[in-house]
Amino acid sequence: MIAVLSGGVGAARMLRALTLVMPAEELVAVVNTGDDLELYGLSISPDLDTVLYTLAGAINEETGWGLVEESFSTLGALARYGVPTWFGLGDKDLATHIYRSMRLREGAPLSRVTAEIARAWGVVSTVLPMTDQRVRTKLTLADGDEIDFQEYFVRRGHAVAVRSVRFEGAEEALLAPGVLEALETAELIVVAPSNPIVSIGPILALPGVREALGARRASVVAVSPIIGGRALKGPADRLLGELGGEASALGVAAHLREVIGSIVIDVVDAGLATEISGLDVTAVVTETIMRTPEISAKLATAVLEAGRRRVRAGR
Amino acid sequence: MIAVLSGGVGAARMLRALTLVMPAEELVAVVNTGDDLELYGLSISPDLDTVLYTLAGAINEETGWGLVEESFSTLGALARYGVPTWFGLGDKDLATHIYRSMRLREGAPLSRVTAEIARAWGVVSTVLPMTDQRVRTKLTLADGDEIDFQEYFVRRGHAVAVRSVRFEGAEEALLAPGVLEALETAELIVVAPSNPIVSIGPILALPGVREALGARRASVVAVSPIIGGRALKGPADRLLGELGGEASALGVAAHLREVIGSIVIDVVDAGLATEISGLDVTAVVTETIMRTPEISAKLATAVLEAGRRRVRAGR
Repeated sequence: MIAVLSGGVGAARMLRALTLVMPAEELVAVVNTGDDLELYGLSISPDLDTVLYTLAGAINEETGWGLVEESFSTLGALARYGVPTWFGLGDKDLATHIYRSMRLREGAPLSRVTAEIARAWGVVSTVLPMTDQRVRTKLTLADGDEIDFQEYFVRRGHAVAVRSVRFEGAEEALLAPGVLEALETAELIVVAPSNPIVSIGPILALPGVREALGARRASVVAVSPIIGGRALKGPADRLLGELGGEASALGVAAHLREVIGSIVIDVVDAGLATEISGLDVTAVVTETIMRTPEISAKLATAVLEAGRRRVRAGR
Repeated sequence: MIAVLSGGVGAARMLRALTLVMPAEELVAVVNTGDDLELYGLSISPDLDTVLYTLAGAINEETGWGLVEESFSTLGALARYGVPTWFGLGDKDLATHIYRSMRLREGAPLSRVTAEIARAWGVVSTVLPMTDQRVRTKLTLADGDEIDFQEYFVRRGHAVAVRSVRFEGAEEALLAPGVLEALETAELIVVAPSNPIVSIGPILALPGVREALGARRASVVAVSPIIGGRALKGPADRLLGELGGEASALGVAAHLREVIGSIVIDVVDAGLATEISGLDVTAVVTETIMRTPEISAKLATAVLEAGRRRVRAGR
């Protein structure tokens, strides 16, 4: 079994890549829920949905989020009522949020509801929210204002400087059923090419996760979301820089060094490999932009091989 | 000011007809909420929406309910999750239910939310739910099963025999703000051509309504929803027969006799006028099927004139 710490788009593509080279049934995604939000009384879990829709083959490939062949009639009609409509909720996607909200209100934990949604979409991999409890990523901007993640990410287009990040509720949250078992018993744990601060960060902030990974860091292999100093998508590069790190694959390795034994970095970053190994993190160089199934499969193979090699090497 | 006791489609068309011959601002609709339902955690008020959408000029004219140029993507997508999808929720319509549910959950009473929705749609008439409390129309079938109204009306297509009807919560419900004032101070009160048992019935079942109308029944004028022994739409004819009355304009007059002074009946029912007057209800004969604006305006004029004539005659 392979466990994958997952954010949204990048992680979903990494998970799909892994299904090309191993049985999808043996994948367990542990997904960030710090980005979750409530809108109009609906409970929305963007990263879970991106992972599920991608594994179901129903994702909008152009945007990386939302469903393919989607319409936005309800969102358009909501504008009439003067409510915020900056979060792009498609009509078909809305069914997921309505169902999830209904089940949560009935008292079902998010992990059970997520399993139900996965089954409804025919997803055979195990998709787990990191926790059934409420954790919310909050960002303090340079001007001192604290805002929610989606406000930062979607509404403000992550175009504002961030001074600090915290994960509200993380300290008291319990891992969802199956998460600790997956981290302790998986052959390897992959840290997906997601934002290390705001996508992987909330998972690492949960009690027990750092310890579980740190105890077996040789089995943990990250994929750098930073390529040539830039994030493929989102603000990972800027956030790394703003929060005292370096916007590079080296910066990612440094940020995660306590919990990973190796990192897969892009060919354009080959020059950083030596410096990364100075952190006691093995750098493996390959093409990491999953622009075709072939490249994706090759990356997935490289990730698994990197982890297995490091495990064999010990520590 | 003219008050109108309202169900759904027939009432909405009557209200629109009245706006053709009097200022829309002077109309107050008191709308049945016994048909309201909760679906997927959404609060749906079918009669309120039909009235609002019709007065806004946005109703689907063919069905009489729902919005014009509507799509059903979310409902189709909900089917994937195995939830019941027999209640036709359009994508644009859904925005209304999402907004209403959000506001109710925030603690706003239904009457305030209804006013907000009316304003959003530019409706200048006053549209009031009969109560801000929960009242639910329940029907006991011939086989003894008790079901909710929409289950009877939509899911089973009102194609089952009914033994009795009750309005759960009606006895303890308070009239919504403005309802009693409207009933006491309106120049006339129109009982719309809605189902007298399951649309007008819940309103009459609320504490104070029968008394308020009975005290000034000369000012109350009904429009028969039964034409030539048949309901134009819905099960009013069968329900009147099943529950011990007569499926005719006479049966409607008999059912409402304690609270109305006159009733407008269709030309095909002219032969019933004498028998109706035997109930101390003045029958006025005119064309009642609102198939053109001209006929609608003529009916509205006849309704107002019938009420005014009876008021002048006293009692």
